[in-house]
Amino acid sequence: MKKVALGIDIGGTNTVFGCIDKYGKCLFTGSISTQKHIDINDYLCELFEQIEIEIANSKEELEIIGIGIGAPNASYYSGTIENAANLQWKGSVPLVDLVKKRMNVPVFITNDANAAAMGEKVFGAAKDMNNFMVITLGTGLGSGIVVNGDVLYGHDGFAGEVGHMIVRKSGRECGCGRKGCLETYVSATGVKRTVYKLLARHIEDSELRDVPFSQLTAKMVAEAANRGDMVAKETFTYTAKMLGEVLANVVAVTSPQAIFLFGGLAKAGDILFKPVEETFEEELLAIYKGKIKVMPSGIKDNAAVLGAAALIWNKNNR
Amino acid sequence: MKKVALGIDIGGTNTVFGCIDKYGKCLFTGSISTQKHIDINDYLCELFEQIEIEIANSKEELEIIGIGIGAPNASYYSGTIENAANLQWKGSVPLVDLVKKRMNVPVFITNDANAAAMGEKVFGAAKDMNNFMVITLGTGLGSGIVVNGDVLYGHDGFAGEVGHMIVRKSGRECGCGRKGCLETYVSATGVKRTVYKLLARHIEDSELRDVPFSQLTAKMVAEAANRGDMVAKETFTYTAKMLGEVLANVVAVTSPQAIFLFGGLAKAGDILFKPVEETFEEELLAIYKGKIKVMPSGIKDNAAVLGAAALIWNKNNR
Repeated sequence: MKKVALGIDIGGTNTVFGCIDKYGKCLFTGSISTQKHIDINDYLCELFEQIEIEIANSKEELEIIGIGIGAPNASYYSGTIENAANLQWKGSVPLVDLVKKRMNVPVFITNDANAAAMGEKVFGAAKDMNNFMVITLGTGLGSGIVVNGDVLYGHDGFAGEVGHMIVRKSGRECGCGRKGCLETYVSATGVKRTVYKLLARHIEDSELRDVPFSQLTAKMVAEAANRGDMVAKETFTYTAKMLGEVLANVVAVTSPQAIFLFGGLAKAGDILFKPVEETFEEELLAIYKGKIKVMPSGIKDNAAVLGAAALIWNKNNR
Repeated sequence: MKKVALGIDIGGTNTVFGCIDKYGKCLFTGSISTQKHIDINDYLCELFEQIEIEIANSKEELEIIGIGIGAPNASYYSGTIENAANLQWKGSVPLVDLVKKRMNVPVFITNDANAAAMGEKVFGAAKDMNNFMVITLGTGLGSGIVVNGDVLYGHDGFAGEVGHMIVRKSGRECGCGRKGCLETYVSATGVKRTVYKLLARHIEDSELRDVPFSQLTAKMVAEAANRGDMVAKETFTYTAKMLGEVLANVVAVTSPQAIFLFGGLAKAGDILFKPVEETFEEELLAIYKGKIKVMPSGIKDNAAVLGAAALIWNKNNR
């Protein structure tokens, strides 16, 4: 029997799952729609049916030693999903209990950024690090912080909301109801907002003038920047400066060894990383200067599933 | 033999020491000048001579089970004091090694804010808390952060520099060489700077108009505020708003159960605490609102020595 951990990543649109061995090898993956079932039990029914089919089809006999789940608004302590704006299951969903009823193994849940941090520690570029941070750059900005080798959950399980640190007082409106949160500037959505701000301010030509807001993507902006489009380039510089500023402030709290940038926006590469590093170094307090690396994630494929499975492999000494 | 921990607090002017039993009872205290000896060995000679005299004079026979030291710029990991601006011993001072040569017991060193946090946990109001923060408000602003029951030292031992988080971009000049650090607004010195800013801005009468900058103290400002002086009152409101803003941002990183305000400025009481709490609650992300207490330290006397000794009593299960 091959020991594996089951990793489940619940996104707003799709749920991806996979079985991961202790070396981070993925034995199978699959996915179902997250949106199809209004009733959480119907959703879990389909999910575990699919998982069991994959397990049955596997060449090797597999022993699931535990299940790790990454989900929005997940609380590690209570094992619940709490009022997730992007999921249709409202209120407090006791997911860990519901999953344990279907498969009686250890089950852990946390948000996707914390799972990404654990993935980096167990399978990625942070294997030898006990104090580091992962910033996930997607539609929003998430953060997973590892301190003394463990994810920093804080008193209530909701630590690591760096995306909601205020970077500009009375700045951009945020979905959280406040103004000036980091993720209104640094995220795929933030990049779009910056493009439109700059198009309004400048008279320069830009290929982005032909794209309506609703169709613009951060990837299009990155591609335009790499083709030399000035507005797109300035957008990335502006985004990076905001991120560098806040990261320098977070370092004064947690003093990590490295900061990993993860997710779609991080794939923009040098046009993002270089100005982030520049602003970050410049803004750091002297005692931290030159000590902290800002780097891409060391995980290439199946990152979300690996991160979720790492919640289990981190608990077992392998 | 009564088991005690020796606590030593090294301040810029004086060094205070004392023996603390496991209940936090202080068996004796004493102090020497920190500034008198340019050679660290001469300083330690006098310090341990005094300590031995006190031990010899004690009514009970004492067994020192360990030594905890609070000092500026102290690194917990390396056991050194690194380039402390307010001490005359320059460069890297291997204090833990030097002390161990004089008394062969476990010796730990950390900065005064981390020691205050441990004091709060072992002897103060945070006995049942595993995630909290202590803000020390003196000449500067220090912070000691406890996560999962332990002080957050970070990768290099220098975590918890909340006083150097930037609260106003391009704001007030800070001793660290940057601008807009929290401690340039929120500290005894910050309060003085705010008084002068407000005296320049307003035409209102104020008793503070008669005091030169060099003679003004935060205590005088607090007293004037309590007598109804409008400039003094506005100074505290302004100071508190800055602190509340940054604390709300720090919560998004560490999610503590409580924040303790400690030190001279915290003694100002309601004129500081009320507006801090107000701004803090207002600025918090919704998931944290109403969950985190801002409160005064639970330690009344010998706080610095108790904090240093707590580094030892925290290690022993008592």
